[in-house]
Amino acid sequence: MIVVMQPYASESQIQHVIDRLIDLGFDVHRSTGEETTVIGALGVKKEFDTGQIEGLDGVREVIRVSQPYKLASRAFRREGTVVDLARGVRFGGPEIVIAAGPGAVESAAQIDRIAEGVARSGAKVLRGAAFQSRRSPYGFEGMGERGLWLLREAAEHNGLRAVSEARGITEIPMLIDFVDMIEVGARNMLNDDLLDALGAAQKPVLLKRAPAATIEELLLSAEHILAGGNYQIVLAERGIRTFETGSHTTLDIAAVPAVHRLSHLPILVDPSRAASRRDQVAPIARAAIAAGADGVLLEVHHDPDHALVDGAQSLSIEQFDQLMGELRLIAAAVGRRLA
Amino acid sequence: MIVVMQPYASESQIQHVIDRLIDLGFDVHRSTGEETTVIGALGVKKEFDTGQIEGLDGVREVIRVSQPYKLASRAFRREGTVVDLARGVRFGGPEIVIAAGPGAVESAAQIDRIAEGVARSGAKVLRGAAFQSRRSPYGFEGMGERGLWLLREAAEHNGLRAVSEARGITEIPMLIDFVDMIEVGARNMLNDDLLDALGAAQKPVLLKRAPAATIEELLLSAEHILAGGNYQIVLAERGIRTFETGSHTTLDIAAVPAVHRLSHLPILVDPSRAASRRDQVAPIARAAIAAGADGVLLEVHHDPDHALVDGAQSLSIEQFDQLMGELRLIAAAVGRRLA
Amino acid sequence: MIVVMQPYASESQIQHVIDRLIDLGFDVHRSTGEETTVIGALGVKKEFDTGQIEGLDGVREVIRVSQPYKLASRAFRREGTVVDLARGVRFGGPEIVIAAGPGAVESAAQIDRIAEGVARSGAKVLRGAAFQSRRSPYGFEGMGERGLWLLREAAEHNGLRAVSEARGITEIPMLIDFVDMIEVGARNMLNDDLLDALGAAQKPVLLKRAPAATIEELLLSAEHILAGGNYQIVLAERGIRTFETGSHTTLDIAAVPAVHRLSHLPILVDPSRAASRRDQVAPIARAAIAAGADGVLLEVHHDPDHALVDGAQSLSIEQFDQLMGELRLIAAAVGRRLA
Amino acid sequence: MIVVMQPYASESQIQHVIDRLIDLGFDVHRSTGEETTVIGALGVKKEFDTGQIEGLDGVREVIRVSQPYKLASRAFRREGTVVDLARGVRFGGPEIVIAAGPGAVESAAQIDRIAEGVARSGAKVLRGAAFQSRRSPYGFEGMGERGLWLLREAAEHNGLRAVSEARGITEIPMLIDFVDMIEVGARNMLNDDLLDALGAAQKPVLLKRAPAATIEELLLSAEHILAGGNYQIVLAERGIRTFETGSHTTLDIAAVPAVHRLSHLPILVDPSRAASRRDQVAPIARAAIAAGADGVLLEVHHDPDHALVDGAQSLSIEQFDQLMGELRLIAAAVGRRLA
Repeated sequence: MIVVMQPYASESQIQHVIDRLIDLGFDVHRSTGEETTVIGALGVKKEFDTGQIEGLDGVREVIRVSQPYKLASRAFRREGTVVDLARGVRFGGPEIVIAAGPGAVESAAQIDRIAEGVARSGAKVLRGAAFQSRRSPYGFEGMGERGLWLLREAAEHNGLRAVSEARGITEIPMLIDFVDMIEVGARNMLNDDLLDALGAAQKPVLLKRAPAATIEELLLSAEHILAGGNYQIVLAERGIRTFETGSHTTLDIAAVPAVHRLSHLPILVDPSRAASRRDQVAPIARAAIAAGADGVLLEVHHDPDHALVDGAQSLSIEQFDQLMGELRLIAAAVGRRLA
Repeated sequence: MIVVMQPYASESQIQHVIDRLIDLGFDVHRSTGEETTVIGALGVKKEFDTGQIEGLDGVREVIRVSQPYKLASRAFRREGTVVDLARGVRFGGPEIVIAAGPGAVESAAQIDRIAEGVARSGAKVLRGAAFQSRRSPYGFEGMGERGLWLLREAAEHNGLRAVSEARGITEIPMLIDFVDMIEVGARNMLNDDLLDALGAAQKPVLLKRAPAATIEELLLSAEHILAGGNYQIVLAERGIRTFETGSHTTLDIAAVPAVHRLSHLPILVDPSRAASRRDQVAPIARAAIAAGADGVLLEVHHDPDHALVDGAQSLSIEQFDQLMGELRLIAAAVGRRLA
Repeated sequence: MIVVMQPYASESQIQHVIDRLIDLGFDVHRSTGEETTVIGALGVKKEFDTGQIEGLDGVREVIRVSQPYKLASRAFRREGTVVDLARGVRFGGPEIVIAAGPGAVESAAQIDRIAEGVARSGAKVLRGAAFQSRRSPYGFEGMGERGLWLLREAAEHNGLRAVSEARGITEIPMLIDFVDMIEVGARNMLNDDLLDALGAAQKPVLLKRAPAATIEELLLSAEHILAGGNYQIVLAERGIRTFETGSHTTLDIAAVPAVHRLSHLPILVDPSRAASRRDQVAPIARAAIAAGADGVLLEVHHDPDHALVDGAQSLSIEQFDQLMGELRLIAAAVGRRLA
Repeated sequence: MIVVMQPYASESQIQHVIDRLIDLGFDVHRSTGEETTVIGALGVKKEFDTGQIEGLDGVREVIRVSQPYKLASRAFRREGTVVDLARGVRFGGPEIVIAAGPGAVESAAQIDRIAEGVARSGAKVLRGAAFQSRRSPYGFEGMGERGLWLLREAAEHNGLRAVSEARGITEIPMLIDFVDMIEVGARNMLNDDLLDALGAAQKPVLLKRAPAATIEELLLSAEHILAGGNYQIVLAERGIRTFETGSHTTLDIAAVPAVHRLSHLPILVDPSRAASRRDQVAPIARAAIAAGADGVLLEVHHDPDHALVDGAQSLSIEQFDQLMGELRLIAAAVGRRLA
């Protein structure tokens, strides 16, 4: 940890900071520049809150040199993590995994028809929400447990693995029974209770970046789950909130190489939400694979114009099939292939 | 709802949109401009998802004319809501309420000493977390139920009302027993389960704006609680996430008049988190009252340099006392007074 | 233009708005909903400032239905614009153009060595600043006219076209003499004088998006140049400013398909500035081509560790050569090829 | 300057960085932690570009300890700068200066009537643009030199000082003749040519923060002017660009105390643009003074509904008069008074 004092901080301010650091058990090294004094503190623990020093008089800035996460860091597992959903579906290996399905499970006929369509085009994972997070209290709530059951059935009939979102901790036992991977939606990335519960679960997790979260904060949320003992985590970039109003969120394509540099966890890209419009999904999906993503998550509906949720950003089955052809070519161009 | 077609959209695209709107039960009005056709749709319900139209071919934009919230809107209750914590403490009336206390309850001695200090200077509400939301899994977790018990004791001894944060739904029964107002932290503003649980509770709620939430989304979260039947809600502005790195978040001072225009709910300002540094708390607190805030929430610690959390942004009891003097003058200048 | 009144606006407020619109020469259509009255105004001119209506009492929002730009819109030239730098270098056609070179021209030996290297690997355009925009007044200013002369020489020796940045209007005559395309840097995207001067020039323009500009504002800046009579404009996405601090700016990959949908102008991507670090340049460049970009602009230096500016984000000649091989494969995968 | 290496960077990477730093003339100090090695470099000059080190292999981050500006820093002139427009109008002293006037000078009658109105209510500076920066090339361009002449006349008749915006360098000689302070608009904050020209001018400058600029970048732009020898600079906070779409920009109220801490230059607040709507101007103006601003800049028009530009955010003369009464009370509450 490095403490940068304000220019021309007084000697007594500097001494007070040093005393406080020694009290806290640090080894301290002082470097006195022409204008600015800098104090190095060795031996900082992950749990140390730099706010304890930032507030002292005369301090300009406290810089944490060590990363605040440990288990999520690349250094912890240099070779990279492979998240295994069984039956040959693995995120983080040489193959790129495509997960596809509707925003929400609406009926047996709907989910089965979509599952059949996406499986035929090469998807390996079926997605679909049974518990819908809702911007408005008046929106569609999802089918609940019956939706999970239908998702499982449709996945089994079509040789797919299943992923669905936990809106809160109460749904985790049900999700564990029905799906192969539990999704933490963007709005829950900072829900400590949910992260703790998933840390204790024996089930792969798909952890989505919140629209206001830095990459470091995404990795800290992963750290919560890792600290609980669950190492089967796939991260997802789905866009961050910016001033650009042309789309719901701005997909941070640089998050793909950044996560690969900083962490051992695989990362997939969810272009549907960031694209907001169907005709921008394909370019972003292609870009994701070109940038090195380990997977892509796509909203697909057999009849997008009548989808209960997210119709504007859903691909039709025909559009999905065409996109899969394009993604196969891009994957080959970067030396990988679709699972 | 207004559907704006792309310039030079084809007649068949326009007709398809109109047919779909009629199917959905809308009254439709078409206006054909030189370049652009606009379709008005009357009779939109709050729960309608505009995505069902946004995805249709040839559509450029769908504009919702009616606000997506209803119970939270100013039109619903023109006279404004007064949230009553009993014993004379009311948010939204002519008096401005100051809530103060430490980031976290640390011990009986700590919370009592702070409570005594802030009460003497004129605070009416004691704040302090017993369940700590943590950026890192290694941070301080809070004292749990015992912390709530200490907070209650300290509040009672000093004639204060008590507010504390719910990290998740499991803590709500305990909070109902111990505090006069339950805080929903910024990271939980979109936690549907928690909002639903508070809608069913008979307890005032302090709902904080998430760092990536628009004012409209804050009001939609309030709508969740209102729709459950709980009308005792105070909103809180605590800064939004921007590119400016000089402070944790950028306090959106315009949110104060904007909320007053759009909604009947009172709004308070939490400068501590946005300021990040002690020496910026006072100017922002003064600005909040000048802008018309119904309350201010301040982090205060008897020994900020040794606070377990948030020390950098906490005021000492002496600093708090001085600030209260300043706030009294500003309140008078805008024709109000501190409670 | 659509004027949305506040819920329950008074009849006299509504009538005042209608009267004002009629005064301004609009055809007016009123639609009275249950809560909200909406007024449609036909015949809005591009130069009309909606602020004249937004400020009237009882108005909630004014929505401009027609796009504020005309010459830049896709509808104006459906087939797309090809910007021709002569000698077979064209942006916007089937071929993707790679422009490469150092941040700044430093010496004859430097620019010539880099030009020779990038030409050998397949770049078609040489970039290099002679007038350096500087964050700090103490930074390197650039070599000035001599730098332009060296850039031209190096381009000619190696069969490349040349592009360089105008820091202001005074440099335009010189740039017209020396280069094949004039770059408007991100900080000048809103410099009206410069845009006007380039509108009158007979020289292709590379117009970079400012870090706080929406795509609509980028197209409005292009409209300034188009309105002056110069139609040879290539747009550039180089990242927008967001809260994510892991890179200088967040590259908005969705801008590529968005610009193609909204405008007829070609767009290239500049990953160097957005990546900030050399090891993130290649993934973003690959993503750009996968998303459909018409070109890529890359910082390349024969000795990045000793570059006077932008060393951290510059590729070595060897790294550039390897990346070109990757870009060729991605271009083929999306049905295009490098020029 | 502190160079933080990546965790487990190799010894040869570390040694290469140290060698490079020594080459560059720095004194080097190495601190080897358990995971992370940190290298301190003493003797960094203001003009040093940290990019020269950031790009080296194994480097995680380079942190500049000294501020990149010098003349603009508080340490350079602890007592604060007073910018004197003559005839008793001073920014940065105990008095708070109110500048007011229309967005654009439209006619002799208009500017004179407004000048007379704002002077009567206590404004000391008259603002009004003669050269209009335009979002769209089709907007109102301003009256040019005749507008400046009218502004000067109206100011003289009413005992006011005059401020007007330079759209580019060509207008500076004219502005020097006609006004007492030259405004650099937000879109020109990074226009080096303009900053250089103003550095050489003997005229106070009003420098507005760009919507994507950090406070540090605002101070760097001031540094450009200061480095040219002109010390008469007033900074202006007018809102930054964020995801919140309820207003044009989000006013960063914390910029007021932050600038006062970091710099000796006075700062005023321009609420009109940030507020976007007339009814939010007054609360923000009051907040500005409560936060410690040295001045407020307000758009005022005698007939806002017919203003050529910015009508929605302009106050009427009556509204301005009422606001002045409120501002006087707030100024007194913070121990200052209106000039």
